[in-house]
Amino acid sequence: MTGTGAPARRVSRRGLLTGGAMAAGGALAGAGTLAAVRPQGVRPDNPVPVAQVGSAVEPFHGARQSGVTTDPQAHAAFVAFTLRPGTDRAALGRMLRLLSDDAARLTQGRPALADTEPELSVLPARLTVTFGFGPGLYAAAGLDERRPASVAELPAFGIDRLQPRWSGGDLLLQICADDPLTVAHTQRVLVKDSRPFAVVRWVQQGFRRAAGAEPGRTQRNLFGQLDGTANPKPGAPADTAVWVTDGPDWLRDSTTLVVRRISMNLETWDLLGRSDRELAVGRRLDTGAPLTGRTEHDEPDFAALGPDGLTVIPDFSHLTRARVTDDRQKILRRPYNYDGVPTPEGNADSGLVFASYQADIARQFLPVQRRLAERDLLNEWTTPIGSAVFAVPPGCPEGGWIGRQLLG
Amino acid sequence: MTGTGAPARRVSRRGLLTGGAMAAGGALAGAGTLAAVRPQGVRPDNPVPVAQVGSAVEPFHGARQSGVTTDPQAHAAFVAFTLRPGTDRAALGRMLRLLSDDAARLTQGRPALADTEPELSVLPARLTVTFGFGPGLYAAAGLDERRPASVAELPAFGIDRLQPRWSGGDLLLQICADDPLTVAHTQRVLVKDSRPFAVVRWVQQGFRRAAGAEPGRTQRNLFGQLDGTANPKPGAPADTAVWVTDGPDWLRDSTTLVVRRISMNLETWDLLGRSDRELAVGRRLDTGAPLTGRTEHDEPDFAALGPDGLTVIPDFSHLTRARVTDDRQKILRRPYNYDGVPTPEGNADSGLVFASYQADIARQFLPVQRRLAERDLLNEWTTPIGSAVFAVPPGCPEGGWIGRQLLG
Ligand code: HEM
Ligand code: HEM
Repeated sequence: MTGTGAPARRVSRRGLLTGGAMAAGGALAGAGTLAAVRPQGVRPDNPVPVAQVGSAVEPFHGARQSGVTTDPQAHAAFVAFTLRPGTDRAALGRMLRLLSDDAARLTQGRPALADTEPELSVLPARLTVTFGFGPGLYAAAGLDERRPASVAELPAFGIDRLQPRWSGGDLLLQICADDPLTVAHTQRVLVKDSRPFAVVRWVQQGFRRAAGAEPGRTQRNLFGQLDGTANPKPGAPADTAVWVTDGPDWLRDSTTLVVRRISMNLETWDLLGRSDRELAVGRRLDTGAPLTGRTEHDEPDFAALGPDGLTVIPDFSHLTRARVTDDRQKILRRPYNYDGVPTPEGNADSGLVFASYQADIARQFLPVQRRLAERDLLNEWTTPIGSAVFAVPPGCPEGGWIGRQLLG
Repeated sequence: MTGTGAPARRVSRRGLLTGGAMAAGGALAGAGTLAAVRPQGVRPDNPVPVAQVGSAVEPFHGARQSGVTTDPQAHAAFVAFTLRPGTDRAALGRMLRLLSDDAARLTQGRPALADTEPELSVLPARLTVTFGFGPGLYAAAGLDERRPASVAELPAFGIDRLQPRWSGGDLLLQICADDPLTVAHTQRVLVKDSRPFAVVRWVQQGFRRAAGAEPGRTQRNLFGQLDGTANPKPGAPADTAVWVTDGPDWLRDSTTLVVRRISMNLETWDLLGRSDRELAVGRRLDTGAPLTGRTEHDEPDFAALGPDGLTVIPDFSHLTRARVTDDRQKILRRPYNYDGVPTPEGNADSGLVFASYQADIARQFLPVQRRLAERDLLNEWTTPIGSAVFAVPPGCPEGGWIGRQLLG
């Protein structure tokens, strides 16, 4: 790994690292353009009917699992488990029957069978429970040969500072809903029912804008960036990127999930000037437009040169390095913000629970991650501190259970 | 302190502690009554116009601070600070001018002056920032004689298992909004601006139902109970309970806040049968009705006897012990749920950030807390693990700052 020395040098030519040490200055500059970021849909004179936040339902049954191409809910808990010794193929079948039944009920606003707080189950708030199988699950089931080859610990990257407490896992439950109480109760039910079979390895909670706060807008992360702009569009483009369309029935309609916990250093980021921050990504902070464009969804022009003879969008910007144009090669990012407790000195513990769905980790995710690890201006302010990979098996019909095609 | 031995004995007569060890049984019993708890207002055929979740604004300026009698928002961060040595009366004035200015802007959807992520400031989502002054602040300002007498560390209670990491504090900022990103960004701005003056002592994050999930309904806690039923009603009753109406100008229109972190043992609670849980509180889990009534707001009849010759509502139920009828003596509970990361074995880390507002801690809060500490069936499943008290000074007019009446 070459680290991030080169990009840092490149940037300082543009003043990216020297123009910084502002604070109020950049803030005021930003304030001038705020009209552009005020959400259009939620002004008092144009109320959006948000209603039904609590009663809204996402399907559980179907060929493919929900929670992947589902419009992201406001809250998420990623719960990773380590299987107990002795949880073999048969036990996995029992566990997944139970958890599938719980999820089928809870997502539809009905209590789980052994639900001890059934009153907390009546507001699904678009609840989805998405099951992911880590490498250890295939091993425990004695089915290693059925594991998608790319569902394996990622190679080490020079930028990584991985901590075991946020890494790995044999089974993942990604619990998402627009209501935090629904997420908490669902997590409680599922963790309880998994006890005979598995122990909790880690839990990562995250959030996006509240339901109805900014309908139809790209979410912002804690750097203030619009995050999700260049995701493959809902419908065919996202479907092409995400779903496995052939192979044996435990692969067809499956996908894979990479979860990376990436801390974002707000302390150093906040010292940068706005234009330096925009160069790091290649997009504007207010509108999310590429530096060569005017609106969020304008196509970036990577060849356009500025007066200094350099490309307007820096060659080592996150945008340039992460760019993928072929829908089949794209990844579907579905990240959540996390915000822990600051240190006594007031340093934030903030970042992304970066979650990326793709048909094939090796073909789609890894090339991007390799390019970013090699050179990406953003690496100066972000650090991967956790990493885990999962196969996301096909969905199940009513009365079925997740994993049956693999284990049944 | 006599502990909870007596109530435990009393209860077992009713089978409260012996009827337990159910799980599915109680759950099924509960499921039968779920129709009663389904929210009425959010059915697809009767959509409530929730809109404007993001743009909704609460006032910052006024005689009294917001965030007290304000209809509770979905998310909260309670941020407690320890003043740095040397933060004296003059420095406190500078700090509070700065933080008041930040809060005045952010609550109205405008970036703070030194806001480095101004795009995160445009959706107030009913943001309120409520300032609380701990005993140490008065001492640091050399103004001990102006401290309300009851704003002092609470006496020790036999039920307490207080941890320093959740206790005390010289200054509190209670940050509430219907959007979690707004809370995170506001916390970031305020923590940054307080750095020269104070260090972060603790942060407690909490949640209630999402905005629009259950409009107009009492919130539920993680025991599944309706929590807030017998609060003084909005308007005159709550105002009478909460606000100081006379005295010098640093007391008039002030109130006090007790923050108790109370862990709720879901493991043992979930082993109880439903009727035992209902006896512990004296109210039904589904409707929240008193055991002698039919609907949530029916008056409890503490004298009514059951076929066994005992009072229908147990004398040591939480309801009986906490009961206050005189509005002037009531407390205004404004609690938030917390849900941390479960242990590997799957034991929940859940509870309440119990927050109670009242004109006078000694006159209103302490008698209730003493009765509960002495005998309250609920003590079997709840444990106070943090405690802090604050004076909540009067509000400020436009251009003013919180604390001016005290420090100015
Ligand atoms: C904390 C870490 C990260 C932050 C703050 C971040 C932020 C952003 C931002 C602001 C954009 C531009 C807007 C958009 O299209 O969403 C973007 C684009 C993108 N990011 Fe990241 N990102 C992070 C990590 C990653 C990682 C780990 C990957 C994959 C390995 C990744 C892959 C991408 C891709 C594929 C794009 C779209 C590029 C395009 O085709 O235009 N990002 N990211
Ligand atoms: C985790 C701890 C606690 C839980 C789970 C809890 C739960 C409840 C529940 C379910 C009710 C009945 C519904 C309602 O009126 O809200 C209630 C009432 C009440 N609680 Fe608590 N409570 C807790 C701690 C406390 C504490 C520490 C205090 C004060 C020291 C307190 C004071 C009250 C009062 C004053 C009432 C209203 C009684 C009445 O007049 O009807 N509670 N609580």
